[in-house]
Amino acid sequence: MEIARPYLLFLGDVHDDLAAKTAYGIVDWRRDWCVGQLRLPGCNADAELPETDIQGAVAAGAKTMIIGVVNPGGVLPDHWIETIVAALDAGMDVASGLHMRLGEVEAIAEAAARNGRQLFDVRHTAQRFATGKGTKRPGMRLLTVGTDCSVGKKYAALALEKGMRGRGLNADFRATGQTGIFISGRGVSVDAVVADFISGAAEWLTPANEPDHWDVVEGQGSLFHPSFAGVSLGLLHGAQPDAFVVCHEPTRTQMRNVQHPIPTIREVIDATVYCGKLTNPAIICVGIAINTEKLDEAEAKALCKEIAIEHGVPTTDPVRFGVEGIVERVIREFHAQ
Amino acid sequence: MEIARPYLLFLGDVHDDLAAKTAYGIVDWRRDWCVGQLRLPGCNADAELPETDIQGAVAAGAKTMIIGVVNPGGVLPDHWIETIVAALDAGMDVASGLHMRLGEVEAIAEAAARNGRQLFDVRHTAQRFATGKGTKRPGMRLLTVGTDCSVGKKYAALALEKGMRGRGLNADFRATGQTGIFISGRGVSVDAVVADFISGAAEWLTPANEPDHWDVVEGQGSLFHPSFAGVSLGLLHGAQPDAFVVCHEPTRTQMRNVQHPIPTIREVIDATVYCGKLTNPAIICVGIAINTEKLDEAEAKALCKEIAIEHGVPTTDPVRFGVEGIVERVIREFHAQ
Repeated sequence: MEIARPYLLFLGDVHDDLAAKTAYGIVDWRRDWCVGQLRLPGCNADAELPETDIQGAVAAGAKTMIIGVVNPGGVLPDHWIETIVAALDAGMDVASGLHMRLGEVEAIAEAAARNGRQLFDVRHTAQRFATGKGTKRPGMRLLTVGTDCSVGKKYAALALEKGMRGRGLNADFRATGQTGIFISGRGVSVDAVVADFISGAAEWLTPANEPDHWDVVEGQGSLFHPSFAGVSLGLLHGAQPDAFVVCHEPTRTQMRNVQHPIPTIREVIDATVYCGKLTNPAIICVGIAINTEKLDEAEAKALCKEIAIEHGVPTTDPVRFGVEGIVERVIREFHAQ
Repeated sequence: MEIARPYLLFLGDVHDDLAAKTAYGIVDWRRDWCVGQLRLPGCNADAELPETDIQGAVAAGAKTMIIGVVNPGGVLPDHWIETIVAALDAGMDVASGLHMRLGEVEAIAEAAARNGRQLFDVRHTAQRFATGKGTKRPGMRLLTVGTDCSVGKKYAALALEKGMRGRGLNADFRATGQTGIFISGRGVSVDAVVADFISGAAEWLTPANEPDHWDVVEGQGSLFHPSFAGVSLGLLHGAQPDAFVVCHEPTRTQMRNVQHPIPTIREVIDATVYCGKLTNPAIICVGIAINTEKLDEAEAKALCKEIAIEHGVPTTDPVRFGVEGIVERVIREFHAQ
């Protein structure tokens, strides 16, 4: 599965920015893959791309229209269908991050078939995987892990890909969730895979590679999240990371959507090494990424410094302060002569 | 989902006993739920039930025909379809442990619809689950865990249900795999659930109950198996066991279908407590079940004794020596005045 680019971003008529989080993520990281945005009357989201319609997007070279929004309830509103059919009729593929599959709508399925175009439902996977083997593969891998869900694991992985490439390393971001898949054009929603194949899907995503190549893998969930730890563990075993970065949001007190407390960074480091050594006995922590959005700059700096000293690894907010220290640590640990 | 009984066991024309493992498991544990077996010419398996045909089974009260065999490749042979359709036409439901869904065969789907009968594909699940919440529920739970796959976790759980009931405890076996589902008439194949919902499915399977009620939960995989540890962890978190029993096959040197060594029993106890305390901080090991099939009786006894001393918990082969010691330990730990 490879989503053809450039993209047209479809924002529908969603009421707020939160509903367009996926589109914003694409623009943050792949602005140059986007020819424009298409908004219906009443849309309050704005990805700050040129406004366009289907014909304008095709003229600008768009190959795929991305439905980069969710609407309450997760289903596809009837009044979006016309635009989706028009995109297919104009020769574009359509990719969606909605829970509902595009092909479930008869008019869309027919338009795709009629035009020989592809429909991508990135929350689902039609792919069949083998079960994980757990055998060590050539190439290196870095996984972002979290003290909770939604703490910046995708963002940290993308920042690390960019930072590592900037230092001349051969690094590729590997997407495990819907927004990440749009950003990299490929990947697998590991939480949508049948349970038996979680680690197998992670192995497929990060196959054998050149010895100095890095897969920078987007983590999912947390080993300490009672809803999703199975996904996190299967991903950890399948990705067999050489290195990991712990992502943390310091103001959160409870895990997302459950009543469990947030684990400490130390607990996450220890659990990741304890579990990860099953498929990579040499696994180490190379850094900590703190989401300091809710702190002022002085507080953020002080906190990163304090955590760095406590754990002995570079600690940063990737958005505010970059990832240079972590990349430096990766080079020192894995690329020193 | 509740599979109606009694059952007619369909053995097809499979060539050996291994292909009929599921049927044999049903007869081992639920002989009195089975009115007979139906075999096609050339069948080499024998569940030692009265031979019958569709009409005879219906006359004996059979409500469901169970396809208790697998054939090489996992698909449904064309020449079995006639018998399946006849069972539906005679008013029985049909339940299958094959990978292929019964409803994929048009003649079977039509016969089910025509007769208003149900088709059960126990390797799959049509059920939708919530994500796991991890909140402590009333009632007690015991989970069997393993040093590997296929070491006797289902058998140990069934023996414990029987032994606990024999001592007056209120205990119900909870099935997490296909044979177990036939044996209990309900359950969920947790390895077939979408990854996000593993722990949620386990919570659904073991809901809030009377304070002195035990769910005796069939374990899956192993926390140390690189293919399936995610399933094992999600099941552990969702089942939130108060007690667990480690199952082990002492002659095995490598984990099933991969190149990893078998962990020690101590490692499995430690990892189960380490991970399990997320949803039940009071989790304890109450016993060890050794599959001593390949040892002679004296060796088996000596090994159980040695392991019991090493780990300080009752150790037995449930098949050879029963589970009285483990049940005794459960009573002492959880039901003492």
